[in-house]
Amino acid sequence: MCSRESVQNGPDAVGDEHIQKAGIVSVGNELLNGRTVDTNAAYIAGKLRAISLPVVSVHTVCDEVDAIERALALAASEADVVVVTGGLGPTDDDLTRQAFAGFLGGGLVLREELLEGIRQFFDRRGMEMPGRNSIQACIPQGAQVLDNERGTAPGIQARKGGKWLFALPGVPDEMKHMLDTKVLPQLQPLTAGQTLVVRRLKCFGAGESRIAEMMGDAMRRGRNPLVNCTVHTGVITLEIVATAERPEDAMRMADAQEQSLRAVLGDLVYGTDDQTLAEVVGEQLARSGRTLAVAESCTGGLLAKLITDIPGSSRYFTHGWVTYSNEAKRHDLDVPVKTMEEFGAVSEHVAEAMARGARRKAGTDYALSITGIAGPGGGTEQKPVGLVYIAVDSADGTNTSRHVFSFDRSAVRLRAAQTALNILRRRLDLTGPAPM
Amino acid sequence: MCSRESVQNGPDAVGDEHIQKAGIVSVGNELLNGRTVDTNAAYIAGKLRAISLPVVSVHTVCDEVDAIERALALAASEADVVVVTGGLGPTDDDLTRQAFAGFLGGGLVLREELLEGIRQFFDRRGMEMPGRNSIQACIPQGAQVLDNERGTAPGIQARKGGKWLFALPGVPDEMKHMLDTKVLPQLQPLTAGQTLVVRRLKCFGAGESRIAEMMGDAMRRGRNPLVNCTVHTGVITLEIVATAERPEDAMRMADAQEQSLRAVLGDLVYGTDDQTLAEVVGEQLARSGRTLAVAESCTGGLLAKLITDIPGSSRYFTHGWVTYSNEAKRHDLDVPVKTMEEFGAVSEHVAEAMARGARRKAGTDYALSITGIAGPGGGTEQKPVGLVYIAVDSADGTNTSRHVFSFDRSAVRLRAAQTALNILRRRLDLTGPAPM
Repeated sequence: MCSRESVQNGPDAVGDEHIQKAGIVSVGNELLNGRTVDTNAAYIAGKLRAISLPVVSVHTVCDEVDAIERALALAASEADVVVVTGGLGPTDDDLTRQAFAGFLGGGLVLREELLEGIRQFFDRRGMEMPGRNSIQACIPQGAQVLDNERGTAPGIQARKGGKWLFALPGVPDEMKHMLDTKVLPQLQPLTAGQTLVVRRLKCFGAGESRIAEMMGDAMRRGRNPLVNCTVHTGVITLEIVATAERPEDAMRMADAQEQSLRAVLGDLVYGTDDQTLAEVVGEQLARSGRTLAVAESCTGGLLAKLITDIPGSSRYFTHGWVTYSNEAKRHDLDVPVKTMEEFGAVSEHVAEAMARGARRKAGTDYALSITGIAGPGGGTEQKPVGLVYIAVDSADGTNTSRHVFSFDRSAVRLRAAQTALNILRRRLDLTGPAPM
Repeated sequence: MCSRESVQNGPDAVGDEHIQKAGIVSVGNELLNGRTVDTNAAYIAGKLRAISLPVVSVHTVCDEVDAIERALALAASEADVVVVTGGLGPTDDDLTRQAFAGFLGGGLVLREELLEGIRQFFDRRGMEMPGRNSIQACIPQGAQVLDNERGTAPGIQARKGGKWLFALPGVPDEMKHMLDTKVLPQLQPLTAGQTLVVRRLKCFGAGESRIAEMMGDAMRRGRNPLVNCTVHTGVITLEIVATAERPEDAMRMADAQEQSLRAVLGDLVYGTDDQTLAEVVGEQLARSGRTLAVAESCTGGLLAKLITDIPGSSRYFTHGWVTYSNEAKRHDLDVPVKTMEEFGAVSEHVAEAMARGARRKAGTDYALSITGIAGPGGGTEQKPVGLVYIAVDSADGTNTSRHVFSFDRSAVRLRAAQTALNILRRRLDLTGPAPM
């Protein structure tokens, strides 16, 4: 199967080497058949980025020696460090070792001490080592071993043409432990040349292109800090990446960029990092000692669900009504039948009556209401699918607004619930703490 | 920005061409910084596999023209069909169009009819088109347009060297719709040869290893049909993949396997394909002409949300209460204060009183109630985080059950809501249609 060798290669001599970019190769048919999402790559990318080593590409390939070797060569041409995961198991479709050996230009050698380690792994579990596991004791010629403290597949490490090459097991738990304890400690000292500071601003209330226009040339490529923009269900995330040799410089650059974006975008910015609108509104309510109730028609519980996603939300959220029929709106919220008959259940007047009824019944400081047509059925020319009325009621009065959201039932519902939270956020911004 | 052209290119002539392999290129810095997991690639791979077009590689690259172009060339060298997603937005970091043009060896041309379409998209929303959106009307020379019915970014399609090249938007909803309606119908006729029939059975109410035990050797590798098992938030999906030359043979094999699994698993199987518990329960209610109300404490609107995710749910769902305080339980559902004081809000007695109160107030045939401790705070030794009581009430009486769910707040809430739906499903299975 492979020749025998028991000498240990020392690492290549390293001077004041600097590494700047990394690439990832994910190996496995299961990643290419649509059933398994590659979460390993995201984990590795996040960890490498945290030590200022950005990942520039991920190549996912099937269990074939040639495909793995090609991806290795490509990744090594694009980056200083390549991390491969998967294909180190004991079965016939585990071919990363062979591809690694091919890329290094040699064969596989059996390491006696590894074979012994794998035997002991099975011994400890009172099992005999299956014959096929001996392949896991074979390592590409010229490569080093990364011990696996969580399983039988050792990792592999090698240098070629100045590049750093690592192969880690595909089992997430084993991969993470090996990356954290064996790989990152070697790489971190070599990335010292530059520091990466990352900030995230979360925005709601305007589209992507409107926000890009407001930001002027902040998003120009090649700039430092770099500003990236992503959109997810109406929430726009602006990511600021500042790079500098000294951490304090990177920090200062990120601060300045954040301030200038905040100045331009004003209250479109609702939070930072992973904050949700419900979280920010919850903090505002808790801080000011105010309470909230909601009354929902087309969102059918989604608004209450988003609010109660937040641990501790019972401090400020007490009552929710899902009034999915006219009878429920009348009975639970005292919406007058005459108002529904005259204007329809999806109308400014009904939204207003729902919010007022909810606040009165719950005895809260604020109430939000939503009524609309989520679709796919139920639309007319006057009242199309996507039409939503949102009302907020407090001691200061009631405000109602009309919106038309698009695409499908689930998008209309989510945008309606988020917009309601955003409306409350803006009103709370104008309000001081509750009287003592 | 780009030259102007309004002619439409016809498709390349296609004879009895066969396509066998596909590659995917995912574009976006957010996929390489560890923040976003690439779910688009898995979706596309699953859909291509279902038309017998296996994906052999996925290349994920950052927002740089050269990197995208290199990945395109690599993917095209490995496969007959290349699907690119992402980088078609209106901002400066959207560079797929430029890379596509580079790979095809030409520039970008402005398509007047696309510009008009984008203007209309904004018009319909009562907004002016931001200037930067005009880049989305530019298409690589020699390429064709794929209409985007869900957003402003048109897709792109081209042929080069006999290969099929597609660029789709990165927004999942837009990508899926374009893939399903514009891409797959073109490719399917070209993938003849071997037929793959895929069936999915959805199960709820037992763990993965229990279900694996019940199935015996059905999951043995190398079998045809192959049975795969995946678990997601308590729902177990059994995927049957039957492969044969003739479609009718594959179909017959899949049928036989499905029947034998159903015989073994009984009413653990609640549905097929992408059906949810809420969808199946909704069909049962609609078919039998019965109605439902819900009363929620710890799930905070999630149960109502799952029910109203289903279009047309207003036929059977009328009222939901989110009673997130004792006062709300008393006021809205008539839960006696004495019961809450004696047994606590998280108790069998309160769950029962909530379900009865909800059914009486709503006047429905069924009511479900949930009360529990979702955490992370609020647990005690007697009543730990994860403890949930679920009650179902109907003219036949009230049933209450006690559950302890694990992991975190979001998992406890989801499992509680799904278990409530499953309890109702099993009760409805025993019930005939409503009396006329």
